[in-house]
Amino acid sequence: MDNGLLVVISGPSGAGKGTICARLKEEFSELKVSVSATTRKPREGEVEGISYYFLKEEDFIKKINDDEFLEYAKVYGNYYGTPKQEVFRQLEEGNDIILEIDIQGALQVKKNYPRGVFIFILPPSLYELNKRIEGRGTDSKEVIMKRMQCAYDELNYAFEYDYVVVNDQVETAVQQIKHIIHAEKSRAIRKKAIINKVREV
Amino acid sequence: MDNGLLVVISGPSGAGKGTICARLKEEFSELKVSVSATTRKPREGEVEGISYYFLKEEDFIKKINDDEFLEYAKVYGNYYGTPKQEVFRQLEEGNDIILEIDIQGALQVKKNYPRGVFIFILPPSLYELNKRIEGRGTDSKEVIMKRMQCAYDELNYAFEYDYVVVNDQVETAVQQIKHIIHAEKSRAIRKKAIINKVREV
Repeated sequence: MDNGLLVVISGPSGAGKGTICARLKEEFSELKVSVSATTRKPREGEVEGISYYFLKEEDFIKKINDDEFLEYAKVYGNYYGTPKQEVFRQLEEGNDIILEIDIQGALQVKKNYPRGVFIFILPPSLYELNKRIEGRGTDSKEVIMKRMQCAYDELNYAFEYDYVVVNDQVETAVQQIKHIIHAEKSRAIRKKAIINKVREV
Repeated sequence: MDNGLLVVISGPSGAGKGTICARLKEEFSELKVSVSATTRKPREGEVEGISYYFLKEEDFIKKINDDEFLEYAKVYGNYYGTPKQEVFRQLEEGNDIILEIDIQGALQVKKNYPRGVFIFILPPSLYELNKRIEGRGTDSKEVIMKRMQCAYDELNYAFEYDYVVVNDQVETAVQQIKHIIHAEKSRAIRKKAIINKVREV
């Protein structure tokens, strides 16, 4: 059997990764989401192994040293990471997995699993991105400025991805990613099993 | 503006390339078909520049020497070829082009235009392929044997293509190729213009 697809949805903050992933999970009920590990304390209602794997910092660092993460990062004093073992097991079982992740994380995943499908979500314009981040109402002017500068710099990384999808209309972007997922299942590199099967008969 | 796509539909004889291309042209009315050049005599009803460009053998050979073909072949004493100029002009105008072509031709096109989208049409089994070729009723037992041996050998080339589409049901194969064409329009390598546009605003 051919392995499942690891679909990585990434892009600058405010590009709309979250909304797109939520819609994709509705469309592809068979898409699995990988559970991340973190050292932050569980919040009310969060369940071990479903919301996150909650780890002590020393255990997390040991896993870093043992190369057990597809990617990880430290954010505001807490570690977050995607465990390799979990993801690879799902892929081997033929399940497709979706990862929503920032650009630094996606580049780490690409190093560890170049066969993934890397999709960069592009805001239609920096003006629009600015409007969206302001619209959230959660960030100070200074933070917004920083995010914008960061987004501008991050556009450089788009060329390291396999696909670039403009998120002008969410539904159009979701349709586009559906096409990509279907198409990727036909990539010749993933078809070894079926080609050999045809030859045998 | 980004260039159009050159979509190359290829595969063993009897895999169903022709039927699939006809359906694709119905689905994508904007898909252009490139007009081939040939040294064979026009048949009744064939129109210069629409059915083929009809060339004298000496002119065809001059064009070969001037590297003016994306691919060419000599079949039963006549030359057939795909003129570069025609195809490249269409692509530069942003038009998508579809080429239905045998495997040797496709490999030549890949050398000359690696940015093309190369799709290998795979019969569901060699048994089914045999049935289809016999079903045509046009080939002798000996020719069928040769075609089957050739198809078996040609399966090796599937891995040199970008995509492999199994033609079990024509409609499923056509849908799959539709996904591929849409997905390819989002390839990061084709998105330079739009990424730069976002950065400018």
